[in-house]
Amino acid sequence: MQDFSVYLAEFIGTAILILLGGGVVAGVSLARSKALAGGWIVVTLGWGMAVAMAVYVVGTTSGAHINPAVTLGLASIGEFSWTLVPGYIAAQLLGAFTGACLVFLAYSAHWKHTDDEATKLGVFSTSPGVRNPVANLTTEVIGTAMLVLGILGIGANSGHVSVGDADLSGLFGTGLAPLLVGLLVLAIGLSLGGPTGYAINPARDLGPRIAHALLPIPGKGSSDWGYAWIPVVGPIVGGVIGAWIWHLTGFGG
Amino acid sequence: MQDFSVYLAEFIGTAILILLGGGVVAGVSLARSKALAGGWIVVTLGWGMAVAMAVYVVGTTSGAHINPAVTLGLASIGEFSWTLVPGYIAAQLLGAFTGACLVFLAYSAHWKHTDDEATKLGVFSTSPGVRNPVANLTTEVIGTAMLVLGILGIGANSGHVSVGDADLSGLFGTGLAPLLVGLLVLAIGLSLGGPTGYAINPARDLGPRIAHALLPIPGKGSSDWGYAWIPVVGPIVGGVIGAWIWHLTGFGG
Amino acid sequence: MQDFSVYLAEFIGTAILILLGGGVVAGVSLARSKALAGGWIVVTLGWGMAVAMAVYVVGTTSGAHINPAVTLGLASIGEFSWTLVPGYIAAQLLGAFTGACLVFLAYSAHWKHTDDEATKLGVFSTSPGVRNPVANLTTEVIGTAMLVLGILGIGANSGHVSVGDADLSGLFGTGLAPLLVGLLVLAIGLSLGGPTGYAINPARDLGPRIAHALLPIPGKGSSDWGYAWIPVVGPIVGGVIGAWIWHLTGFGG
Amino acid sequence: MQDFSVYLAEFIGTAILILLGGGVVAGVSLARSKALAGGWIVVTLGWGMAVAMAVYVVGTTSGAHINPAVTLGLASIGEFSWTLVPGYIAAQLLGAFTGACLVFLAYSAHWKHTDDEATKLGVFSTSPGVRNPVANLTTEVIGTAMLVLGILGIGANSGHVSVGDADLSGLFGTGLAPLLVGLLVLAIGLSLGGPTGYAINPARDLGPRIAHALLPIPGKGSSDWGYAWIPVVGPIVGGVIGAWIWHLTGFGG
Repeated sequence: MQDFSVYLAEFIGTAILILLGGGVVAGVSLARSKALAGGWIVVTLGWGMAVAMAVYVVGTTSGAHINPAVTLGLASIGEFSWTLVPGYIAAQLLGAFTGACLVFLAYSAHWKHTDDEATKLGVFSTSPGVRNPVANLTTEVIGTAMLVLGILGIGANSGHVSVGDADLSGLFGTGLAPLLVGLLVLAIGLSLGGPTGYAINPARDLGPRIAHALLPIPGKGSSDWGYAWIPVVGPIVGGVIGAWIWHLTGFGG
Repeated sequence: MQDFSVYLAEFIGTAILILLGGGVVAGVSLARSKALAGGWIVVTLGWGMAVAMAVYVVGTTSGAHINPAVTLGLASIGEFSWTLVPGYIAAQLLGAFTGACLVFLAYSAHWKHTDDEATKLGVFSTSPGVRNPVANLTTEVIGTAMLVLGILGIGANSGHVSVGDADLSGLFGTGLAPLLVGLLVLAIGLSLGGPTGYAINPARDLGPRIAHALLPIPGKGSSDWGYAWIPVVGPIVGGVIGAWIWHLTGFGG
Repeated sequence: MQDFSVYLAEFIGTAILILLGGGVVAGVSLARSKALAGGWIVVTLGWGMAVAMAVYVVGTTSGAHINPAVTLGLASIGEFSWTLVPGYIAAQLLGAFTGACLVFLAYSAHWKHTDDEATKLGVFSTSPGVRNPVANLTTEVIGTAMLVLGILGIGANSGHVSVGDADLSGLFGTGLAPLLVGLLVLAIGLSLGGPTGYAINPARDLGPRIAHALLPIPGKGSSDWGYAWIPVVGPIVGGVIGAWIWHLTGFGG
Repeated sequence: MQDFSVYLAEFIGTAILILLGGGVVAGVSLARSKALAGGWIVVTLGWGMAVAMAVYVVGTTSGAHINPAVTLGLASIGEFSWTLVPGYIAAQLLGAFTGACLVFLAYSAHWKHTDDEATKLGVFSTSPGVRNPVANLTTEVIGTAMLVLGILGIGANSGHVSVGDADLSGLFGTGLAPLLVGLLVLAIGLSLGGPTGYAINPARDLGPRIAHALLPIPGKGSSDWGYAWIPVVGPIVGGVIGAWIWHLTGFGG
């Protein structure tokens, strides 16, 4: 039963991530939105705060991975139980799908006023600026390695303080760390998001892509399934690499 | 007498919210303002910091709801006393009205240089990008559910730490949490503000709309009362939904 | 001798404030700067971080008023000694003058490439979007009242926590509070900076205006002394009002 | 052997700095990047968060200087051992070179679509808006003095709190301080980055410049070695000045 609680947390956390993350792309790109043309600072800050808020809501329950690349990266170095991995990933995918449906609803009046099919797909899933599988995969690997390395650094540096018998780790572990993880995603978006739109999370891309395929979006085009494997494979590989860099360097003490 | 203090706090807190929140819209939209055309990042960061600063000033006195949707959401799950609800809401509305009057004064030289009536109303109240009651209501419900769910998550994750006999909850409860709530409002604005301008607070929209109707604004137009019920009803429904998601999931422990 | 240390701190803190604050205006407005046309978000974030960094460097020594309106506001409610007031204000003015000279040096190659005289003055001192003494004074009063009220709120809400015999106030008093005060100035700039460029600090405007008058700036124009009294008188009145709102409401406990 | 760990930390920290810092310049300037024309706020926030994230990953191991100007500045006032200086600087240069290679890979599909040679060099190294050695050197000296003075201020004001026997310095020392240092770099970029692009770090400029010279970048031009000494000499002089201002004022207590 405790398991169900962590899966529910991953589901809701990832739904929040996509509601706010997909929402900001809708905001800056759909016709007649007040955020139209808000620019890259709006997109990246929107995704960064989306992560932070998801972690504040569900972090103390499940750890708020909200990303299969994080779950697999942590498991690969023994920091997360493999028996929980399938349930976490399933909950993350379902949450991402649900979040994308909420974005569809929140911007329901705007789809029919937007002509460009790629713009509409872009609210759900990522696509590359220059289509080149090796280059695009490399970008996603580098970005996600940075993500998982950064999460482990933030986690290690924001807790482990005790006073007498009392563990004060929680002070920063729950207080500041979710914001810092959000700022890490902001950093990656600002710096490494240019080539592929920084999926850095298989659920973030695949769940909403399925939603795009299934939802009755007015005037929608292809869901671009030919590209869909890159933001799944790249982040998984990158997540494991990032976790192992942390593990091998021993910076965590 | 203690009651009066909390009502005064809600009044002043909501006045600060609207002074800074309405002020940023005035800044980016009124002619000859130095912030003219500052863009969505300026608007959303302005509202986010408006919330944070209001909470820093009055948070320890009244809890700084500064929003009837928060007050009603908390009351609906038993986290706030129903006997205080009417006074809180009245103080919030009066504060919002007062804050709007201060915006009118702070930008007093700029109204006559601005021609567009909708621009002038926009400093006070929200309006939809695409006018569609069901869609607009849905957006406000989703945004406010996210607001109240996020506030409860931040509240639960930023305190409850004790050392020996001493409760350290206050360290984050008063230190970091107001900023985090401001960043939550920033997140919602960035991501869900596009369709309706994110009232997500009945007092934020209704108080300034009354001010717009009453103040001698040069060249003002309609106060658009036909739309006024949406940013009241939507946030109330959303606030209760958000509170119940938190309550039912039990993430608060 | 201890006195001299606090005056030195006010001098250096205000110099940092103007170096970074004047610097950001130079960056977005002088020809051939890489930050040219960075917009209002750059200007307001630049001033906000200027305040935060000044407070981190000198805050524990002098309290980092770096603003005569803060010094006078605090003194008016008995929170600061009147005997220190003259020295604080003198140090702030001298620091602001020095900071403006450093901006002149940091951007030394850019002055001759910039034609507009008002642009060059704008790096040093504020000017109104619409010239109207009563309106401009009102804006500065409201902005500075918000500043001092906010500072007192942040100060009261970020400390006063003890564990057993130990006072933990310093944890936030020195840790987070300077950043929050910087974000308060960001908030005021975003929201209330549009009409007059938010001096909200007599030293911030007068010190650099004197520097503008004295420095050999290529192609400089008038120092606009006719306006100079407004960003001095308005902030002083506003600072006292803000302090008294805090004092009378009793939110500080 | 402990030494090797700190050198590895400086290497990885500086590589992260340049991966994210060079990455953000690539993002806003290379053709067909989604961040194209993101503006100065994106550039400066990207570099600021790059610093913060580098410090979170390696800060507890090596102190995360990731900048020879910081290393030399601290050593000059006796706050860092001279015997470690050569290894630190070598690791920083090698890390900066490696980070630049990762930027080359992350944006591998974009180089051939970008025509301007100066744009491509700009991803790696700084260049002045107005070429004037004395002025450019002065700007780098002022910016780096501010950097080191600010780092020392943040360090002194974010720790040194104890409860009974326990030292709580680490709470902020590792929790908040890396973010604050990132915001300091944001502040300097916003305010003093306009004239020279704020190297304020010899490794940040020289390591990537060497990478630019060696990497097979399609259509690259000159590495502009005539300018290369300024972002090395200026930051070193500035770093020592900043450290001595802190040391002589005694603000650190």
